[in-house]
Amino acid sequence: MELIDGNKIANDIVAELKAEVGAIKGRKPCIALVRVGEDPASVSYVKKKEKSAAEIGLESRIILPPVSISQTELFALIDGLNNDPGVDGILVQSPLPKHIDEVAVFRRVSPAKDVDGFNTVNLGKVAQEDETGFVACTPAGIMEILGRSGVDLKGKHVVVLGRSLIVGKPVALLALQKKAGANGTVTICHSATSNLPGITRQADVLIAAIGRAEFVTADMVKPGVVIIDVGINRVPDPTKKTGYRLTGDVHFPTVSPLASKITPVPGGVGPMTVAMLMKNTVKAYRLQTGH
Amino acid sequence: MELIDGNKIANDIVAELKAEVGAIKGRKPCIALVRVGEDPASVSYVKKKEKSAAEIGLESRIILPPVSISQTELFALIDGLNNDPGVDGILVQSPLPKHIDEVAVFRRVSPAKDVDGFNTVNLGKVAQEDETGFVACTPAGIMEILGRSGVDLKGKHVVVLGRSLIVGKPVALLALQKKAGANGTVTICHSATSNLPGITRQADVLIAAIGRAEFVTADMVKPGVVIIDVGINRVPDPTKKTGYRLTGDVHFPTVSPLASKITPVPGGVGPMTVAMLMKNTVKAYRLQTGH
Repeated sequence: MELIDGNKIANDIVAELKAEVGAIKGRKPCIALVRVGEDPASVSYVKKKEKSAAEIGLESRIILPPVSISQTELFALIDGLNNDPGVDGILVQSPLPKHIDEVAVFRRVSPAKDVDGFNTVNLGKVAQEDETGFVACTPAGIMEILGRSGVDLKGKHVVVLGRSLIVGKPVALLALQKKAGANGTVTICHSATSNLPGITRQADVLIAAIGRAEFVTADMVKPGVVIIDVGINRVPDPTKKTGYRLTGDVHFPTVSPLASKITPVPGGVGPMTVAMLMKNTVKAYRLQTGH
Repeated sequence: MELIDGNKIANDIVAELKAEVGAIKGRKPCIALVRVGEDPASVSYVKKKEKSAAEIGLESRIILPPVSISQTELFALIDGLNNDPGVDGILVQSPLPKHIDEVAVFRRVSPAKDVDGFNTVNLGKVAQEDETGFVACTPAGIMEILGRSGVDLKGKHVVVLGRSLIVGKPVALLALQKKAGANGTVTICHSATSNLPGITRQADVLIAAIGRAEFVTADMVKPGVVIIDVGINRVPDPTKKTGYRLTGDVHFPTVSPLASKITPVPGGVGPMTVAMLMKNTVKAYRLQTGH
């Protein structure tokens, strides 16, 4: 069993981006990070993104509207960034306050600057295999992990657990694409699936993204499977200071011995998302500036 | 074995639309049918659409630019229709002459009038389960056939043969949706799939859309399967006046006895596409006018 080191892969990508951005003459790519209010998780996520941008040499603009901002005002703020030629990528940190329609806000971001990949057009482009779009960071990170771990999906049966808009569906569409490394046969399972173990046991590559702690057990996989565990769940654990531990959607102790390769939680897919956001920002810069 | 009668289902939909459109006061929904040049198949398709629109009581505008039209001129023509409040839906008949970028033309059609469902935004909306979009006519027709034949996909294993943008991918996304009638577990197979019969034999519902005559044989299905045959292939047949016969992607004589329900070719999915185009046009009218 090979443990896939998501931190190492993410660091490799950051180093590559740093070299790439270092070679850019003149204005550097710029990401606008919009955080509404002071949600502690959002504060921490935005800090991470800011830090990663700085490390790579990207410009970042941190925009911190108060939690009381109206949807109209937030739209106006986003429109300003959409029209600002100095901004290449825009990230609006989720979650937004309840009085704001999150989906409408994500759609307000210009598709050309939607480095989070949540815009309808960019999801459509994933389905169309149109490389001018932006792939959402988690599914993009999963494909990078697979590619950089030497897993070619061609002819493989890829089983995706979960049909969410930000992981399950886009990663299924990516695994299905005709491009090198993809070409998988893809099955998407979810809460309404019958005989789930019978299906997951067929997986050559299993992508678990249902958000249920340690849901995938040893009887649900076949020996030699490659497992990408996208879940990040908190499980009560009195032996920890925090009172909980983080676990994936896979019961790691019993499943990992059967796997040929597996991502741990934490340290698997998680670290990839920020790296992919930065990669999308550099791509947005190149597409918009033509450099 | 029950033979699914696509002509009857399409006629039912046309009758429903006729009643619906008859009840609309004032301006009726209007579809613009754009046919470039005199390709004989296109001439026949556009005629069918015109006839169906007339039967339902829809207005139609037939626009027949010459084969020599430039892409810029065609764009200008489409822009005019996009901006015309009297036009609800726009269909640009495929195929277009080779000097024109077909995908670019489809994308030029406003998403709000894209009754063919080929626009990137509308494909994204299928993935997002956003009901304000338009589903391409063939996958939409497949879902109607299933629904009106009493096939609920919930908990069923739906195997889609083919990953095309106009059938395989959208129908997979539709079968996967959370709405009533859908909720299927979906597998998408294609030319790079290994052990295809082993997968198709698991199908409770098999949707064949690969464009290979009589590709699905009896050893590839399990008894009781529901089969939707999307293929329309010409096979040489000296006993026919035309020199060929039409056949689907399924070897009907040997497979149909195993199926619980099956669509024939012709007379299955084919007749549905025009009906769904008309249904999309009425939807476009309602969304745009608010009536």
